[in-house]
Amino acid sequence: MRPISSDSMHFPQILSKLKRGPQVILPKDIGLILAYTGIGKESVCIDAGTGSGFLAVALGNVAKNVTSYEKNAQFFALAIENTKRAKLENVKILHKDIFEGIEEKDADLFTLDMADSDKAVPLAHAALKSGGYLVGYLPHAEQAQKFVSACRTAGFSEIFVLESIVREYLAREQGFRPENTGLTHTAYLAFARK
Amino acid sequence: MRPISSDSMHFPQILSKLKRGPQVILPKDIGLILAYTGIGKESVCIDAGTGSGFLAVALGNVAKNVTSYEKNAQFFALAIENTKRAKLENVKILHKDIFEGIEEKDADLFTLDMADSDKAVPLAHAALKSGGYLVGYLPHAEQAQKFVSACRTAGFSEIFVLESIVREYLAREQGFRPENTGLTHTAYLAFARK
Amino acid sequence: MRPISSDSMHFPQILSKLKRGPQVILPKDIGLILAYTGIGKESVCIDAGTGSGFLAVALGNVAKNVTSYEKNAQFFALAIENTKRAKLENVKILHKDIFEGIEEKDADLFTLDMADSDKAVPLAHAALKSGGYLVGYLPHAEQAQKFVSACRTAGFSEIFVLESIVREYLAREQGFRPENTGLTHTAYLAFARK
Amino acid sequence: MRPISSDSMHFPQILSKLKRGPQVILPKDIGLILAYTGIGKESVCIDAGTGSGFLAVALGNVAKNVTSYEKNAQFFALAIENTKRAKLENVKILHKDIFEGIEEKDADLFTLDMADSDKAVPLAHAALKSGGYLVGYLPHAEQAQKFVSACRTAGFSEIFVLESIVREYLAREQGFRPENTGLTHTAYLAFARK
Repeated sequence: MRPISSDSMHFPQILSKLKRGPQVILPKDIGLILAYTGIGKESVCIDAGTGSGFLAVALGNVAKNVTSYEKNAQFFALAIENTKRAKLENVKILHKDIFEGIEEKDADLFTLDMADSDKAVPLAHAALKSGGYLVGYLPHAEQAQKFVSACRTAGFSEIFVLESIVREYLAREQGFRPENTGLTHTAYLAFARK
Repeated sequence: MRPISSDSMHFPQILSKLKRGPQVILPKDIGLILAYTGIGKESVCIDAGTGSGFLAVALGNVAKNVTSYEKNAQFFALAIENTKRAKLENVKILHKDIFEGIEEKDADLFTLDMADSDKAVPLAHAALKSGGYLVGYLPHAEQAQKFVSACRTAGFSEIFVLESIVREYLAREQGFRPENTGLTHTAYLAFARK
Repeated sequence: MRPISSDSMHFPQILSKLKRGPQVILPKDIGLILAYTGIGKESVCIDAGTGSGFLAVALGNVAKNVTSYEKNAQFFALAIENTKRAKLENVKILHKDIFEGIEEKDADLFTLDMADSDKAVPLAHAALKSGGYLVGYLPHAEQAQKFVSACRTAGFSEIFVLESIVREYLAREQGFRPENTGLTHTAYLAFARK
Repeated sequence: MRPISSDSMHFPQILSKLKRGPQVILPKDIGLILAYTGIGKESVCIDAGTGSGFLAVALGNVAKNVTSYEKNAQFFALAIENTKRAKLENVKILHKDIFEGIEEKDADLFTLDMADSDKAVPLAHAALKSGGYLVGYLPHAEQAQKFVSACRTAGFSEIFVLESIVREYLAREQGFRPENTGLTHTAYLAFARK
C-alpha cells in the first residue's frame, strides 16, 4: 500500500505556502474549530502552543487578530517565518510560556494544543469573554477526559468533544469509492463555552 | 435507542439563532468548506441554492460578502429572515434561478447545493476568479461523480472529494467513548480550483 | 431525524429468534471476533458474562462448544431461553461468577464482556491453550487501556485493539449514499494471543 | 507518515499461513459476511471468483463445505496452494467460469467478488436455497448500485448494503488513541436473502 503523501492533504493556498513542522493541525480539524465556534471577522483569538503556526495562520485569515504563545525557540522561529509567508499582520507570535501569564483579555476563542492543555484551562477561562469558546486539541483519550474535567472545574458550560474522520474519494471512470488508505486519526477536539 | 436531537448538533451562536428548514448544511460540512478553501476576510462568495441560508450566513460571518441565489419562494423568505436574525449586512439573498444568469464575477468561492449542481458547474467556472474554489454539496455518490466530471469538462484543476464523519464523545466519570448513535452521513463535498 | 429501529440491525436468522436484553453484542462486533480469531468447527470457547447470550449463540453456531458464565439470575434465565430458541446443544450457560473459578481448560477463545473484564484476564490466560485468543468487549477507552495492560501483565502476546464503524447504505433510484443516522459506537475490542 | 504494513492486518492463524495475491478479502469484511449471514457448521457455501482464496478458506473454516469458482489460471493455482496450506478438505476450488454453469444447489451462502458480480446474481439466486444469503463484495459505489438492482430483479428480499470502517488503536502509557493512518476502504458489501 502507498504511504500517504502530504500532497493529498489539500491545504488551502494560505497554508500551502507554510513550512511544515512535525505535527501540524490539519484543515479537517481547523474546519471543526472555525465552524463550531463560529468565529468571524470581529473575533479575537488566543492560541497556545503555536507549534508550526498553522492554526494561528488559519485563525488569522478569518478573525480580527490572533495572539499565539510558544515557549520552544525552534517552533517560535518557524511560526514567525510562517506568519511572514502568510502575509498576515494580525497574527502575533510571542516567545513565551503561557503559564508565565497572559495579558490578553475578553477573547472570543482560546485554542490549546499542548502536552498539558488541561493545566491551562483556568488561564483560558480568565482570558475569555463571556460566551467565548475554548477548544482543546487532544491526541489521546485520557487527555480529552482530563481536559473536559478541567473545563467543568473552571466553570465552563456547553462542553462537548468531537472527532472528525475525513476520507478522500476517488471519482474516476471505473467508479466512485474512498481511497484505500489514509489518515485515520489526528486528535479529539474538546469545545467549552464560558 | 434515542433519536438524535437537534440540540446535540452544537451550532455556533450565529447559526443557533436561525430558523431551520428541512435540510440545513451542518457545521461539520461548513468547516470543510471554510478550511479547505481557506476563505477569509477578503473573500467574495457566491452560493446557490440558498435553502435555509445556513451556509450563506456561515460564509458571511467570515468573508467579505456573499451573494446567494434561491429560486424557491418559501426558501427565499426563510433565508431573508435568517440573514436578518444573523444581523449580517454582507449577505445578499436573491430570489432568482442561477440558470437565468449570474452577474457577480471574480469570486473566490462558489458553493453549489442543488439537485442538479453539476449543470451549474460551467456558470460557476465563469463567475470564479483564477485560483477560486468551487464546492459542491452532494448527498449521493452519483451526484458526486457527475459533478467531478462536469468540473473536469469545465477546466477546473485540483479536484478532490471529501466526506466528513464527525462523532461526538461522552467524557464522563464512567469513561470516555463515542455516543452510541448519531449522524452518519450528510453529503460528499467536491472541491475544484479554477 | 428518525430513531434507529432494531429492524435495521440485520440480525442473521439464528440471532433474530432471540429475545433481546438491554445491551446485546451486535453482528458487526461478532464479526470482528469470528474473523480476527479464526475460530471454526474445532474451537472450544469460554464466554463471560453471558448477558442475553447473543455472543454465546453466535459462537456456538460456528464453534465446537461454548461454556458461558453469568452471575446475574435474570440474565442467566434469558440466556437459557435464548439458547433453547437457537436450538444449539453445544452452548452451556452456567449460573456462576467466573471469579469463583473456571473448570474448562485449553480453550481456543475466551471472550469477556463484563464491567471489570480486566480483572478476569489472568483467569482467561489460565483457561486458554497456547495460541488461543482472548477478546475483551470494552465500551470505554479507559477499560480498553486497563484490559490491554492486564493482558501484558498476564503474559499475552500479539495484543491489538480494534473498533468497527459499520454504516448502512441506501441504494435507491435517486442515488447511493449512507443512511443519515445510525449506530456510531458499541465498544472497543481488544484481542490478545496466548 | 508510515505506510501500512501487512503485519498490521492481524490475520488469524489459518489465514496468516496463506500466500497473498494482489487483493485479498480482509478479516474486517470476512467478519461482516460471517456475522450477518449467520453461517455455521451445517452451511453449504459457493464462492466466485476465488482470487487468492482467503474468503473460501475463511468460509471453509466455519462451514460444512465451500465450492469456489475461478476462471483465471494463476489465481486458481494460488488458491489451490492456499487451501493446501490451510489444510482444509472441505474447500473445493474449480478452475471454471461460473457463467459456464453452476452444478451446486441449495446453498446457504453465495459470495461474489468479480468485476461483473451483478451479472452473476441470477445464477446465485438459482443456486441458493430459500432463506439463503447472497453477498457481493463491491469496491465501487456504482457496482453496489447495479448489484442491488440485480438482486431486486432476481427476486431477492431483505437487501441491504454495509460498509465497515475498522480502526486500530494504540493502547500505550502515553495514552489511548487510534493509529494515525490506516485502511480507509476495501469494498461495500451487499447482502440479499432469497
